[in-house]
Amino acid sequence: MSVEISTLDPQVIERGKVFFKSISGEAPSVFNKGWWTGKVMDWAMKNEDFKVQMFRFVDVLPYLNTSESLSRHIEEYFAADDSNIPDVLKWGATKTGFGGGLVAKVLNKTIRSNIEGMARQFIIGQKAKEAVKGIRKLRKDGFAFVLDLLGEATVSQEEAQAYLDGYLEVLDALEGEYKKWDALDASGDLDWGSAPKINVAVKPSAFYSQSKPVDLEGTVQGMIKSIEPVYQKVMGMNGFMCIDMEALKYKEPTIEMYKRLRKKYPEYQHLGIVFQAYLKCVDHDVKDLIDWAREENLPISIRLVKGAYWDYETVIAKQNDWEVPVWTHKPESDMAFERVSKMILENHDICHFACASHNIRSISAIMEMASKMNVPDERYEFQVLYGMAEPVRKGLRNVAKRVRLYCPYGDLIPGMAYLVRRLLENTANESFLKQTFADEADISVLLKNPELTLESELANKPVAKPDKRIRYKGVDGELEPFSNFPPSDFTEKEQRDAFPVAMSNIRKEFGKQYPLYINGQDVVTGDTLDSYNPADPSEIIGTVCQAGVAEVDKAVGVAKEAYIDWRNVEPRVRAQYLLKAAAYCKENINDLCAMQVLEVGKQWEQAQADVGEAIDFMEYYARETIRLGEPRRMGNSPGEYSQYFYQGKGVAAVIAPWNFPLAISVGMVSAAIVCGCPVVYKPAGIASAVGHGLVDMFKAAGLPDGVFNYIPGRGSVMGDHLVDHPDIAVIAFTGSMEVGLRIQERAAKVHPGQEHCKKVIAEMGGKNAIIIDDDADLDEAVLGVLYASFGFQGQKCSACSRVIVLDSIYDRFVHRLKEAAESVKLGPAEDPSNYMGPVVDKAAQKNVLNYGKIAEEEGKVLVKLEAPAEYTSKGGCYTPLLIVEGITKNHRIAQEEVFGPVLVVMRAADFSEAVDIANSTRFALTGAVYSRSPKNLEYASKEFRVGNLYLNKPSVGALVERHAFGGFKMSGVGSKSGGPDYLLQFMDPRLVCENTMRRGFAPISEDDDWVA
Amino acid sequence: MSVEISTLDPQVIERGKVFFKSISGEAPSVFNKGWWTGKVMDWAMKNEDFKVQMFRFVDVLPYLNTSESLSRHIEEYFAADDSNIPDVLKWGATKTGFGGGLVAKVLNKTIRSNIEGMARQFIIGQKAKEAVKGIRKLRKDGFAFVLDLLGEATVSQEEAQAYLDGYLEVLDALEGEYKKWDALDASGDLDWGSAPKINVAVKPSAFYSQSKPVDLEGTVQGMIKSIEPVYQKVMGMNGFMCIDMEALKYKEPTIEMYKRLRKKYPEYQHLGIVFQAYLKCVDHDVKDLIDWAREENLPISIRLVKGAYWDYETVIAKQNDWEVPVWTHKPESDMAFERVSKMILENHDICHFACASHNIRSISAIMEMASKMNVPDERYEFQVLYGMAEPVRKGLRNVAKRVRLYCPYGDLIPGMAYLVRRLLENTANESFLKQTFADEADISVLLKNPELTLESELANKPVAKPDKRIRYKGVDGELEPFSNFPPSDFTEKEQRDAFPVAMSNIRKEFGKQYPLYINGQDVVTGDTLDSYNPADPSEIIGTVCQAGVAEVDKAVGVAKEAYIDWRNVEPRVRAQYLLKAAAYCKENINDLCAMQVLEVGKQWEQAQADVGEAIDFMEYYARETIRLGEPRRMGNSPGEYSQYFYQGKGVAAVIAPWNFPLAISVGMVSAAIVCGCPVVYKPAGIASAVGHGLVDMFKAAGLPDGVFNYIPGRGSVMGDHLVDHPDIAVIAFTGSMEVGLRIQERAAKVHPGQEHCKKVIAEMGGKNAIIIDDDADLDEAVLGVLYASFGFQGQKCSACSRVIVLDSIYDRFVHRLKEAAESVKLGPAEDPSNYMGPVVDKAAQKNVLNYGKIAEEEGKVLVKLEAPAEYTSKGGCYTPLLIVEGITKNHRIAQEEVFGPVLVVMRAADFSEAVDIANSTRFALTGAVYSRSPKNLEYASKEFRVGNLYLNKPSVGALVERHAFGGFKMSGVGSKSGGPDYLLQFMDPRLVCENTMRRGFAPISEDDDWVA
Repeated sequence: MSVEISTLDPQVIERGKVFFKSISGEAPSVFNKGWWTGKVMDWAMKNEDFKVQMFRFVDVLPYLNTSESLSRHIEEYFAADDSNIPDVLKWGATKTGFGGGLVAKVLNKTIRSNIEGMARQFIIGQKAKEAVKGIRKLRKDGFAFVLDLLGEATVSQEEAQAYLDGYLEVLDALEGEYKKWDALDASGDLDWGSAPKINVAVKPSAFYSQSKPVDLEGTVQGMIKSIEPVYQKVMGMNGFMCIDMEALKYKEPTIEMYKRLRKKYPEYQHLGIVFQAYLKCVDHDVKDLIDWAREENLPISIRLVKGAYWDYETVIAKQNDWEVPVWTHKPESDMAFERVSKMILENHDICHFACASHNIRSISAIMEMASKMNVPDERYEFQVLYGMAEPVRKGLRNVAKRVRLYCPYGDLIPGMAYLVRRLLENTANESFLKQTFADEADISVLLKNPELTLESELANKPVAKPDKRIRYKGVDGELEPFSNFPPSDFTEKEQRDAFPVAMSNIRKEFGKQYPLYINGQDVVTGDTLDSYNPADPSEIIGTVCQAGVAEVDKAVGVAKEAYIDWRNVEPRVRAQYLLKAAAYCKENINDLCAMQVLEVGKQWEQAQADVGEAIDFMEYYARETIRLGEPRRMGNSPGEYSQYFYQGKGVAAVIAPWNFPLAISVGMVSAAIVCGCPVVYKPAGIASAVGHGLVDMFKAAGLPDGVFNYIPGRGSVMGDHLVDHPDIAVIAFTGSMEVGLRIQERAAKVHPGQEHCKKVIAEMGGKNAIIIDDDADLDEAVLGVLYASFGFQGQKCSACSRVIVLDSIYDRFVHRLKEAAESVKLGPAEDPSNYMGPVVDKAAQKNVLNYGKIAEEEGKVLVKLEAPAEYTSKGGCYTPLLIVEGITKNHRIAQEEVFGPVLVVMRAADFSEAVDIANSTRFALTGAVYSRSPKNLEYASKEFRVGNLYLNKPSVGALVERHAFGGFKMSGVGSKSGGPDYLLQFMDPRLVCENTMRRGFAPISEDDDWVA
Repeated sequence: MSVEISTLDPQVIERGKVFFKSISGEAPSVFNKGWWTGKVMDWAMKNEDFKVQMFRFVDVLPYLNTSESLSRHIEEYFAADDSNIPDVLKWGATKTGFGGGLVAKVLNKTIRSNIEGMARQFIIGQKAKEAVKGIRKLRKDGFAFVLDLLGEATVSQEEAQAYLDGYLEVLDALEGEYKKWDALDASGDLDWGSAPKINVAVKPSAFYSQSKPVDLEGTVQGMIKSIEPVYQKVMGMNGFMCIDMEALKYKEPTIEMYKRLRKKYPEYQHLGIVFQAYLKCVDHDVKDLIDWAREENLPISIRLVKGAYWDYETVIAKQNDWEVPVWTHKPESDMAFERVSKMILENHDICHFACASHNIRSISAIMEMASKMNVPDERYEFQVLYGMAEPVRKGLRNVAKRVRLYCPYGDLIPGMAYLVRRLLENTANESFLKQTFADEADISVLLKNPELTLESELANKPVAKPDKRIRYKGVDGELEPFSNFPPSDFTEKEQRDAFPVAMSNIRKEFGKQYPLYINGQDVVTGDTLDSYNPADPSEIIGTVCQAGVAEVDKAVGVAKEAYIDWRNVEPRVRAQYLLKAAAYCKENINDLCAMQVLEVGKQWEQAQADVGEAIDFMEYYARETIRLGEPRRMGNSPGEYSQYFYQGKGVAAVIAPWNFPLAISVGMVSAAIVCGCPVVYKPAGIASAVGHGLVDMFKAAGLPDGVFNYIPGRGSVMGDHLVDHPDIAVIAFTGSMEVGLRIQERAAKVHPGQEHCKKVIAEMGGKNAIIIDDDADLDEAVLGVLYASFGFQGQKCSACSRVIVLDSIYDRFVHRLKEAAESVKLGPAEDPSNYMGPVVDKAAQKNVLNYGKIAEEEGKVLVKLEAPAEYTSKGGCYTPLLIVEGITKNHRIAQEEVFGPVLVVMRAADFSEAVDIANSTRFALTGAVYSRSPKNLEYASKEFRVGNLYLNKPSVGALVERHAFGGFKMSGVGSKSGGPDYLLQFMDPRLVCENTMRRGFAPISEDDDWVA
């Protein structure tokens, strides 16, 4: 039988009132202002800035091993803005208060113990023994438990193994105990007559360090492989295992793994899975699983929670311009919770239900529904978090009996992360606990049907703040403000499936000929060059016609002719061509990506990022050119009207690299074109098939003939000729320092007939460093360094090639880095399970191997991970993933750009020395810092002098606009692609000043400086 | 006896009412809507845009000699925005309506005759004979006259002579007539028994083409020389001569001339002068003259007018940032008129009064005051303009009898200019005539005491529109928005007097030694070079120490060291040093100017412009650096905070020219410094004393040691070394193309130890053209071309060296240009009467003379004006003012930069050809167009491709910000000094992106893209 929630409302509210009455006067200890924790919580709820600082401080605390370090962080976190921190919490965190004195030491000790005490509030124990002891006590109080091992961030298989071992260890510890326990409220072996006494929760991603949405199958297998031993152990103890749900990106493999495990042991029913009510897809997902259960005829168990990663999911979605996957109004989650609970309860015959909530309205609603539906007691239970909402658990114990506490245990380092989540939960404005126990909201409000709460929330919603971003007027009306093209969301099946299809389509065209494209015509040449798949050089992508000197002359000639009209085309009309080309790329994104995977060996998401960046460049420059295309009035003198505007410099030669074969090509080409400069485009030889994509896109955009010309060619044959050509006005180059400097030098010489001083826009190499401060969040730092160094085989100008680690954290970091690196898979980019593939071609392979030798000679190998023989045997251009330590700044390998998967580890005594080392090369392109010291981050912002510096982020993955990209020193001429100054380089400013006074009379305009 | 105007008010108003009654129902013909003119006037009053177009069209009409030209202009002026022009006036001015057909021709004829008819309304005749006839008729109607010859714009002595001849001619014509006339209202020879029948008005500036405020004595003498013959002739006829008052700039010489003429013929009393009540100084000036009259015991005569150049005076003042010299509320002028009239009437014993106004309130007040003061009739009279306000003149005739009409006569070309002034007067919102006869305002309002009108005007004044300009926050608070430093106002005696004093002070220091300045220390070297006065090379300005290679190394070394700290100094703090240096320049402006006059031969106003520009650069860049110094957030993703900001590139070498020895030096140096780049400054050898001014100003500003270093030196010794130096990051150069290209080429080579790609900011030569369209206002064009070509001897990169004249106006323009050029004076710049002086040194002299020879060989000399022997004999570096015609674009002299006073005249068949010729050189710096064709101006704005294009203005005199300066092609690298993009060149952009999410939690800021 089913029920309608709304019709139950009176009863639900009545139940709620009774519940409240039963716990009246009690409050969770965390809100007790008599305690230090309560004071902190109180202040955090009142002061957002303090809350941020406080929670961040809690997060970093376990890393602060010395008194000095602790003092320094306290000062940095809390001394800055005195006015916002109450005296009781300031701990005298002022510059004078500390200095290594005795008082300071005592204070430090107090602080540390206060915060650790706070953590212990939520964590049942740091060791297995402690945990068992805690559990014993809980059971004595009548509560069941579910045990969760902290430490979910695993960056390597070693850590995953340790996590698995941790579970086995605690299960061992329980094994000797649990049989001694009396069952709760029942005789026999089962609590309440139905539930296993042993109950553990596992977080799947922690069991497999290489989990990633794009590799569903690999992830599921990796997870199962590690979790299965735990499950077997649990089954051996006749226990219950619940698979927790983490961030959305792991949802699909988690469900899939659940199904496989469930199916593998069909008779064993004590396997549960968690669903999160805050996900918009929750109804669909739960229904799906129940349908599956019925189909398979396998009873299941679901724990329903509200969800603990709301901020994270929302931030990530916003950052990626994905639809926000979670409800954005709290009552929507509450509604979903009741709705999905109802669905589960309706299916109680096949689905056991664990209702995990502290919300008394939710609890009451579930109780009422269960009662109305006559759900047997053994088919549902309640769960709350250890250390939270004590009155609620007590009330539940009274009214529902079957209450299980979710008990995390484990080390303080992961514990602090857990603590922060709990603190956030307790202090969020929409937290039921905060509203109930801190804000003391009216009970009728707290118990209101969330549907009604939502209604009034929406009715009282403040008017959305006006979007202050400027909208430019395009040919077809106003353009939306620029936003980055969203990266593929590989949690979506169709996005995962599209790649193999596209690659197979591309393969069908392998071997075709790519002609030049000059003045709107294909031009076939006698000289050709094959482009091959670096993972398997026998696979020929295509045969590329090669331009010689004659073709260069022809292309420059037609471009020069096209310039005469093109420079006069209105900026917004020129912009429109870019928008059309961008639309073409969006429509053909999978094919464009697939070509990169095969021609240059980009991993899927790297290829997608490249094409996305190409789209971004065009969308951004289209808007920029409209912005800059609007003549600016200069001054406001009456009687004169001065206008400042720009004109394209002339024909641009674009000389592109192979590593971002579409993005950087399109960036330079589209910038030139949109500024009024027709382009002669020379793609990199080994990425000419990708480069030919520009022909297709500009054809599709209907660009006038001659404005874009495609002339792949051998640098040795036609490179200098192109650079020297007197009719070239702009040279946009991205590539190595050697070539860049050669171009600059040659371009500076004026040749007969030349009308312009040539403008060279050169983006060159890097020797980028990441600094690991002694308080860095290593969970993030290790993965960040790995990704920055070995993503696309380190073949990015932004790639990290030096990691500079502070002495006091050196061993911890390096150990984790080594293990993490050794956990990754090497192999062809087209298989998304591979972390790293071959370098781009045989020449690159030779060069990288050579640098590898130098690195090994100069330092000590930490990691040297080779690709499996099955790949290398085909002649794929593989080089090892190489990490070398013992490198100092005078080593060659610390100074020269390798452009491949070679990372050196350097040691620094302190942060300032780390920055000095980071700055010690001729390059200044990118850099990154992992640190949780506000002062060091600020210092780095100033003194770590590179074009793009990332704080607590990897040094790669620059997005157009947000991370306008480019460096200085020998890394470039100090220009930033995808930034607000970039287009200026392709244009000359002009000024027209009209004297508007005639016969002593001047029309006066609105913005003239006129008499009042 | 005296009176109080306010106490007379009731009687004044009563008189006014009677006056109004006497003319009730009548209206000036110009407002008669039954006529074509009336319709135009009506529409012009209702529609500001149409008014502007209409009056401009009237202005250009006399130049439209062909039907085609007339058609084209009608279309351009009136077809653009149909909606704003009533059908009756559109004349079918649409593209289809014209085409050379018969209808078009007829229409054209009608339009021309309508407008000429309009002009004839205000002009008594085009020829002397007509004028005499008209006068005869006026006298018959009972009106006296004062005759004024149109044609005041004289650009040459030939034209001044023609003007004088015109007066003599009309006086001749009257001579035979006037004795036949009966006196008005009297017997005897005098009208009204007291006034000579013959009465002429003269505009002094028209009698002397070289009038200029800075040269008071020369101007007075020049004027007197030409006017005296007219006066003698008038005296011979026992007539009256009135000296009209024109623009403010001629006021002082006009008064001075009056005094001298009056004193020279003390017995002859019939000499009058005009004062303008709209000038704030009118009370003072009139009192001064009356005092003088009493002192000298010379009876005088004053005509008081409201003033006809209000727009002009206000625009000019605003453009120059001078105090507006005229009242900005119309009632203030009316009050002044009554106040000054009273003063004159009070002095009627020594001062005869002509009250010139159409304002019935003013007239009534004067009548009442005169009556109360018992001023005898013969001591005052009334004047009104011919063709205006017929009812007023009729009313005056009735009540006051003594009415004189101001009667312009002469050609239609100057007549149209006069017509426009009259049309403006009639259609101005505050015009008494418009209010009375078009708006039909209430009589009580019209007759109200202007003091009361002012009061209510001020009370009802709309709130001043908010100043939308951004004010940047400097070290000492908010900075005023940038405005250009006002040029010297040489109408002010103290400004005129300051120059000679300063020059004499500078002379006292001649011959002193100028040491280098490195790291805050003077450095004396063995090698020295003398700098001399180009007008008299025997005069040694100073002995300048010369840097060698060692000094360059030292200077670059200290600058590199200074960079480490300087780049970190906050932008607003760096800006503050510039503001202090600017303040120093303002305080020492006369000395700084005087040094330029003597060291490089700048005329006074040129020197002042140079120093003013130096100040502007510092004031502008100070603000710009604060603007750019504010880091910009990029994107608005939650969980990350990206900031885009700049850092100075490194040590800058500034290599400066001698032609704007302070301005360009300071521009480049201050830009570098304020961006964080310490400077090694090499001034031009021949302007090193001026260049040393930078040492003084930065010392005064307290700039840290090493940030500015002064190292004059021989280019051949240390130029390349400086450019090649590996520690130079930026080279800012202004000078010749040859040197600029050499620097670019050398700087592109990377030397060992070099950390940066060098940035070269090169501003190079020009071969600038001015186009004279066939409808150009030649009064302005001739003077503009002359100034642009020969100001500072043509030694500006912006100087005009080619004037391209349309065939159909060629003869008229070239004739006037030739005559104008031959009218100027050559000689040392320190004498402000000289238009042109010596070129800068002997080398320049040799070069210019050589190009002169080429020009003479390639073309036909039009003007070759040599400096007087008294100057050349001293060895001064003079070259002739040379104008050559018959030049085509293939001549060397049409292609190569001369950098001296050599102008070529080129002929073009049509406007498009003219633009082609203008664009036909390697340079693209400045250009100008004189045209009154909206379409051609628009065409030029697009197709005349130079950095700075000026429409109806000379090609020189660029002001910071308003005319951000710089060109492209071989004129420069496409940068604009004093413009919004300039500073970017000295800096590298940096981006710091912080991941602000920790543990899934990110603080959300105001401008994040967050969920609603």
